[in-house]
Amino acid sequence: MSFANHPDCAAALALAGQLADVARRIAARHFRTPVAVTRKSDGTPVTVVDKDIETEMRRMIRAAFPQHAIRGEEFPAEGSGEFAWVLDPIDGTKSFISGFPLFGSLIALVQGERPVIGVIEAPALAERWVGCEGRPTLFNGRAARTSERRTLGEAVVYTTTAETFNPEERARFEALGARAALRRYGGDCYLYGMLASGSCELVVEVQLKPHDFMAVIPVVEGAGGRISGWRGETLSTASDGRVVAAANETLWREAVAELSR
Amino acid sequence: MSFANHPDCAAALALAGQLADVARRIAARHFRTPVAVTRKSDGTPVTVVDKDIETEMRRMIRAAFPQHAIRGEEFPAEGSGEFAWVLDPIDGTKSFISGFPLFGSLIALVQGERPVIGVIEAPALAERWVGCEGRPTLFNGRAARTSERRTLGEAVVYTTTAETFNPEERARFEALGARAALRRYGGDCYLYGMLASGSCELVVEVQLKPHDFMAVIPVVEGAGGRISGWRGETLSTASDGRVVAAANETLWREAVAELSR
Repeated sequence: MSFANHPDCAAALALAGQLADVARRIAARHFRTPVAVTRKSDGTPVTVVDKDIETEMRRMIRAAFPQHAIRGEEFPAEGSGEFAWVLDPIDGTKSFISGFPLFGSLIALVQGERPVIGVIEAPALAERWVGCEGRPTLFNGRAARTSERRTLGEAVVYTTTAETFNPEERARFEALGARAALRRYGGDCYLYGMLASGSCELVVEVQLKPHDFMAVIPVVEGAGGRISGWRGETLSTASDGRVVAAANETLWREAVAELSR
Repeated sequence: MSFANHPDCAAALALAGQLADVARRIAARHFRTPVAVTRKSDGTPVTVVDKDIETEMRRMIRAAFPQHAIRGEEFPAEGSGEFAWVLDPIDGTKSFISGFPLFGSLIALVQGERPVIGVIEAPALAERWVGCEGRPTLFNGRAARTSERRTLGEAVVYTTTAETFNPEERARFEALGARAALRRYGGDCYLYGMLASGSCELVVEVQLKPHDFMAVIPVVEGAGGRISGWRGETLSTASDGRVVAAANETLWREAVAELSR
C-alpha cells in the first residue's frame, strides 16, 4: 500500500506544508540580514535561524503526531517507532549566510527506511516541491515532471561543489560530466527541485546525510525520476553519502554505470 | 563632472530601466521552457532568447539616442562616438538553459572607456541593481550598500566556476580563498549584485569581456565597493578578462596583493 492511501496521509501532508511555511517565514525574515554564525564540531556553519526553525518544527510535530519520532540536523533525535520526521531546517547554510538565494529547508516523513513524504522549500524564492509516495510531485501546487532527455550527451549534470569530492570521486564525476551536454556547479537541495521540474537531468553529490537526501527522494520519484547511491543501491540511513538523481530510468542506468565503474 | 549632472542622465537612466524591463519580460517568459540552443564559434551556447532581447534593446536605443553607439554580445557593433551602450542580453546562458535562476541581463552606458550607467537585471527573481556615476546604487529602488567587513578572514569569496581558471590563476584564487571565511561557486553577474548589497565581500573572475563587466562597475562603485583587474588596473576594453570586486578599499588592496603576487 502506498502512503497516499494511508489514513494519516492527508494530515501528514498538511503538517508538512505548515512546517515548510514556518521555514519560509523565519528564513526569509533573516535572509540578507546580519546573523551570528557559529561552527559545529564538524566545522560546518550553523546559525540561530537553523535552530529557531527546527525548534518550531519539532513543537508542531509533537503537537500533531506525538507518536512520531523526530530526527533533525541541529538537535538530538527524539522518540522512536514506525514513523520519523527527518528535518534539515536550512540546507545550504553557506548559501544562506552569504546571501545566495538557493538554500532550502528539507522535510521528510520516513516510514522505517522509506521516505513517504518529502518537501523541498526554497524560502528566498517562495518555491516549494512536495512529493508523496503514490502521488505526483507538486511544484507550487502544480504537477512537476522530469525531463524526457534520455542520453548523457543531451544531459545537464549538476553538483553543488567539486570541492567535496575525493580524488577518485572527482575522476568519476569528471568522466560522467565529460560525456554530458553541460556540467554545472552550485545549488544544494534546490538542484533536486530543478531536476523534478525538468530543468536538468542529473544531480551527483557526495557526503550527504539522511537529512540531506530523505526529503528529496519522494520529490524526485514522484516527478518520474530515479535516485539512489552511486552503485545503484537504495538510499538509507546506512548510505555512504554518495547520491545520484536522474530524470529517468535510462539516464540513471547510464550514470550509475559510469559512477560505479 | 559626474554623469549624474549630465543633461542626458535622466533620459539615459529611464532608457536603461526600459531595456531591463524588456529583458525581464522576454527572459522570464522563456525561462524553464524548451528553448533551442546553438553554439557560437567560441563554443559557448546561445539561444533565440538572447538574440530577441538584444534586437529589441537595439531598436529602443536607436529610437531614443540615435547618436549613441551600440556594442552587444550577439550582433556586430554599430555606430561610434562619445557614448556607447554595452549589452549582454543574457549573462549566464548556461544557467538560463538549465533552469538555474541566477542568470542576468547586463546593460551599460559607456562614455569613452568609462561606464557611467550600469544595470544588473535578474529576470527570474525580479531583482534589479542600477548604478549611475555620482549616485548611490539602487537595489529594486532602494539604496544598496556593500559589506563593512574589512579583513580577508571575515570575507566571503565568490567565483562563478573554478573550471575557467588556468593553473596559475587557480593557484592564486585558492591562495586568496584559503585566507577567507568562505569560498563559494556559481552565480555569474548576480554575484556583483550580491556584493553591492553587502551579502559577500569579494568576487574573483577570469575570461570576462567588456559586456560582462562594464555594467557591474557603476553598480559596485555606487554601493561603496571597488572593482578592477587582478593587478589593480582600471577595467577597460583592453582588459585581460581578470576581474576582482571588493566590498571596500581595504579588502580590495588585500585581494589585489594576493592575486597579483
